[in-house]
Amino acid sequence: MAGYGYRLGVMGATGAVGTTILALLHERGFPAREVVAYASERSAGKELEWGEQTLIVQPLNAETIQGVDVVLSSPGGAVSSEWSPRFVEAGATVVDNTSFWRMYEDVPLVVAGVNDEAAEAHKGIVANPNCTTMVMMMALAPIHRAVGLERFVMSSYQAVSGTGQKAIEELRAQAKAILAGDQPPAPAVYPHQIAFNVMPQVESFKDGDDYTTEERKVMAETRKILGVGEEVGISATCARVPVFVGHSESINLQTREDLSPEDCRTLLDGAVGVQVLDDPAAGGYPTSIQTAGQDEVFVGRIRRDPSQDRTLNLWLSGDNLRKGAATNAVQVAEILVDRGWLLNQR
Amino acid sequence: MAGYGYRLGVMGATGAVGTTILALLHERGFPAREVVAYASERSAGKELEWGEQTLIVQPLNAETIQGVDVVLSSPGGAVSSEWSPRFVEAGATVVDNTSFWRMYEDVPLVVAGVNDEAAEAHKGIVANPNCTTMVMMMALAPIHRAVGLERFVMSSYQAVSGTGQKAIEELRAQAKAILAGDQPPAPAVYPHQIAFNVMPQVESFKDGDDYTTEERKVMAETRKILGVGEEVGISATCARVPVFVGHSESINLQTREDLSPEDCRTLLDGAVGVQVLDDPAAGGYPTSIQTAGQDEVFVGRIRRDPSQDRTLNLWLSGDNLRKGAATNAVQVAEILVDRGWLLNQR
Repeated sequence: MAGYGYRLGVMGATGAVGTTILALLHERGFPAREVVAYASERSAGKELEWGEQTLIVQPLNAETIQGVDVVLSSPGGAVSSEWSPRFVEAGATVVDNTSFWRMYEDVPLVVAGVNDEAAEAHKGIVANPNCTTMVMMMALAPIHRAVGLERFVMSSYQAVSGTGQKAIEELRAQAKAILAGDQPPAPAVYPHQIAFNVMPQVESFKDGDDYTTEERKVMAETRKILGVGEEVGISATCARVPVFVGHSESINLQTREDLSPEDCRTLLDGAVGVQVLDDPAAGGYPTSIQTAGQDEVFVGRIRRDPSQDRTLNLWLSGDNLRKGAATNAVQVAEILVDRGWLLNQR
Repeated sequence: MAGYGYRLGVMGATGAVGTTILALLHERGFPAREVVAYASERSAGKELEWGEQTLIVQPLNAETIQGVDVVLSSPGGAVSSEWSPRFVEAGATVVDNTSFWRMYEDVPLVVAGVNDEAAEAHKGIVANPNCTTMVMMMALAPIHRAVGLERFVMSSYQAVSGTGQKAIEELRAQAKAILAGDQPPAPAVYPHQIAFNVMPQVESFKDGDDYTTEERKVMAETRKILGVGEEVGISATCARVPVFVGHSESINLQTREDLSPEDCRTLLDGAVGVQVLDDPAAGGYPTSIQTAGQDEVFVGRIRRDPSQDRTLNLWLSGDNLRKGAATNAVQVAEILVDRGWLLNQR
């Protein structure tokens, strides 16, 4: 490795997650001697502020991708499917935030703080889980390790920034028009109006499936991260709500051994990256916006479900752009660097 | 009964539900020869449009409450606790939309289309269930009758109009400020900002309970309406979302006998006051705002939960001010009138 740090690439640098990654790299003092911001041809040449520096956005091509140590990748899945392997061929290790690589057998799916060790086996690409799964894993993995998960039912309340910048603009434009008493602009990003509405669809319905791709991800990725099969029952319903940042989730979970609400609070209070906020009568519980800009996941409303043995209800909220995406990608890059697990450290 | 119709009172006539009740009475051609609008001293003397007529808002006192046949009551619980019995003493039958009377043993709790017969046993007061329970019962009661409910887990996405006019104004004012880039006004109605946020609290936490009064209502009222006990397991998490009108609910339900998604659709398609909207890949599912102004409850996303036998997931949305409150109150009044069950028809 040259000099005092790494040459770092950020793919999708102008997007909602990409800009958060850039902010975090600076904030956390990632040991980067140089950052290369990549985006589509359309954005190439744009200038991005990064700390004291100005980055000129680069297009992706055979020349620009050379000489990079680590890539934090957050473009669309199609772009990642093509360019992540090219970066790996050129010697880089890629931490990818798209859905494309997550379920490949030789691609570790890593939640920093939950299954860091899994990262070691990578062959060039480490995948970042979906934001809904990520936020959930922070609370559920410690519970699974302590008492075993038997089955859980999750309903989500997901922010539009999970979709990207255009969805943020769509919510903003529709809400403005409605509050002014005007006809809102027709939905373009989403199939229905999102302002002042709730929609039980996140992502798409593939090949006539009755679950969305998002719901399937929650089920499949959870099992991969926890290293379990069908013996852990999972049911997911994902809904989009008119919130800019912050995913929330209502979870009903049955454990194999009994876990009291008190013990659950103690367990999660001691877990990495989790904060228990559970004094409901005083308004102490997680809300979506309160997590904005926070790297931790917040858990509250922990209580017994009187209708079933060994069952708790809980509520959690996390910043979908931070721990749900950018923070985890940077944390995984930090793990790779610290442990000497980069391709070009081997 | 005098003349060609009834003398009808509307308590809480200036509120979110009260104004909807007035609109519905006109829309449905309720056989009223006169409507008396009651509200607090503060609103007394105000004029309300009702069809071609102008109603002068009356205060509640010993004189104004005389000579009324039916009262549709939607003030606060405290007002109803005092004035509903006074109306009954004066000979009126009261359909009450507050939470105060619902769990009294001699007060029937009626969802029109679900348990109409229960209304007959009233002693002057018939209660309207809570909006979240009401919307849910429209779909769950037919399923319970067909195959038996064993247990269900419900997470709600509730609109601010369920709280009332002030909450509608709070959401509007906060959202306007945020979109203009200003500091939003501090929360007054709710414990946290509601604009562009989700809050896992609807109503309050009583005496250190870890469930909200709203969640307790869902559990208790469901059992009273279905006439079941603890053998039907119920778990509820109620959340407030930044939506003006339309409650949505994500429900995971286990039945005693197996019910396929196809049979569930057929069953609900034939149920009174329910519309199945279940073509998800084409965007066919209920959303909150789409129910605004509709008297029916919409159900979709009906699918098997792969993690448990005899278990379905479904999503439903209903207008919390219409079927969730005003429509049901008017429908119950219609039942009382049609069947000759008013106190002064006996």
